[in-house]
Amino acid sequence: MAVTASPRVGVIGSGVIGRSWMAVFARAGCTTTAFDAETGQLTRAMQWLQALRTPEWEQVQPCASLAQLVDGVEYIQECGPEQLELKQRLFADLDRVAPHSAILASSTSAYDMSDIARQLRHPGRCIVAHPTNPPHVIPVVEVLGGDQTSPETIARTCGLLAAVGQTPVTLKKHAHGFVLNRLQFALVREAVHLLKAGVADVEAIDTVVREGLGLRWALLGPFGVADTNNDQGVRGYFGGHETWITDLMNQLGPTPTLEPELTELIGQALDRARGTVPRADVRDWRDRMVLAIRRLKASHPVGQRQREGQLP
Amino acid sequence: MAVTASPRVGVIGSGVIGRSWMAVFARAGCTTTAFDAETGQLTRAMQWLQALRTPEWEQVQPCASLAQLVDGVEYIQECGPEQLELKQRLFADLDRVAPHSAILASSTSAYDMSDIARQLRHPGRCIVAHPTNPPHVIPVVEVLGGDQTSPETIARTCGLLAAVGQTPVTLKKHAHGFVLNRLQFALVREAVHLLKAGVADVEAIDTVVREGLGLRWALLGPFGVADTNNDQGVRGYFGGHETWITDLMNQLGPTPTLEPELTELIGQALDRARGTVPRADVRDWRDRMVLAIRRLKASHPVGQRQREGQLP
Repeated sequence: MAVTASPRVGVIGSGVIGRSWMAVFARAGCTTTAFDAETGQLTRAMQWLQALRTPEWEQVQPCASLAQLVDGVEYIQECGPEQLELKQRLFADLDRVAPHSAILASSTSAYDMSDIARQLRHPGRCIVAHPTNPPHVIPVVEVLGGDQTSPETIARTCGLLAAVGQTPVTLKKHAHGFVLNRLQFALVREAVHLLKAGVADVEAIDTVVREGLGLRWALLGPFGVADTNNDQGVRGYFGGHETWITDLMNQLGPTPTLEPELTELIGQALDRARGTVPRADVRDWRDRMVLAIRRLKASHPVGQRQREGQLP
Repeated sequence: MAVTASPRVGVIGSGVIGRSWMAVFARAGCTTTAFDAETGQLTRAMQWLQALRTPEWEQVQPCASLAQLVDGVEYIQECGPEQLELKQRLFADLDRVAPHSAILASSTSAYDMSDIARQLRHPGRCIVAHPTNPPHVIPVVEVLGGDQTSPETIARTCGLLAAVGQTPVTLKKHAHGFVLNRLQFALVREAVHLLKAGVADVEAIDTVVREGLGLRWALLGPFGVADTNNDQGVRGYFGGHETWITDLMNQLGPTPTLEPELTELIGQALDRARGTVPRADVRDWRDRMVLAIRRLKASHPVGQRQREGQLP
């Protein structure tokens, strides 16, 4: 069953993640129905979409009920609160009212679809599609079925997400935090450890990432970086320094406690670094700059014949 | 004692790191003397510099001896092999022959300057200035004195590095791997763990970083990202999800073993991803793209008044 050119999709929940998904689908030309039990939040999401100046925001149709949202959709992106019982009830409702061919995808960052869909009549069409905040800026989406999800649902979900401009990544099994948050909090854990151990301050640690490691990680993952760090690639880098690397990994810090005093100290350091720039402006800058980096990467793919002057 | 506009500097060692430091100093207009006990390597480094087409590469003067290298320099960047005794001997030689006002900086990623400089007559001018590979592309440099390094040496080193276009970051005390490699291998440790646990494959893990986390980390460090992920900043993000975050950090994987079979499996996956593109071309692409991202950031600093059309 192929994905149509601009499928009709539904988005449930209109918080920060939900409204950003609406922007993703609208930008791709999908007619997008939207529902939120809290109508005030949906109104604010529509205002946010309008302010984005995505010309296609009018493709988003706010709905007064689930029944209206599901009408004719191929795909539903659920973005409700992170509470298992609430998601189980919502998926039970959707499974009853949505067209049988519609995929039911959850944005959850916490739950296994096996648990959300356990009691449903049609669990084969249920799937996790976990975005990165915010999905209209960051393309990667972690895709993972539950134990009853059909291979066709996984393939159709990846196809649809790619068609609307996202980068789906299929996981092979569930792990708490999936891949993205596990990697993110592996970095945060060591960063907080180094701060508490007095090795470096907040600004120094952030600078090491944004003027160092992060510049490479915007282009290559940890394995890709290892492969370019040595003339013999990852075989030479891991293989040639195995003792040093293992020793270093064994000396990384344990999980630090996040006392309110520590969080306040980090907050004050970040306030000083921001100075008079409002946090909302930093976020807006981040989003525009990420989109600019993505355009740069899209127009200069790796392996492009490197004639003089063609690469930046 | 101020840093002169274009100080005369010396670089010892002409491998991948040494030759890249030569490019940093030459690009900044510094007359740069270069020495390597292995003269063939120094010749190859000079050819590499010429191929870079940095117009100022002629500022680099290959020397036949340490005595010639140190003549009139303000700053020496040591880039020899990572062996403590070898660095101790080299620093003892430098301490005898270099001008007393010259700073002796080591590119070491492994040793504490307290150990390298313990027997020297003038340990106050010795310092670690650990670059990121390659320093003519990645700006961050970790700066850390030993227990006898003078505050003036730290200040002058940071001033000189900033003047030649790098981003010095001062650490407060020694930790194995400093900050950069500890953060890098915190990510690698969890990446390898997820691979071995069967959660995702090499390409999926790399994609989560380069199309997800890395796009933000090129702009903001881990604390800066946390601060923009929540309307209440890091106080709301860490403080509001403390249980979830602590639980996740506690479930991260232990240090995996790096068997040759595993490294070979990772190597094969990366070979497949590269296809017919040579590894050297990937590295060249990475370097050019990092420089392009740096230009993008330099021309669009955070907090710039965001008039319509001014940001990318």
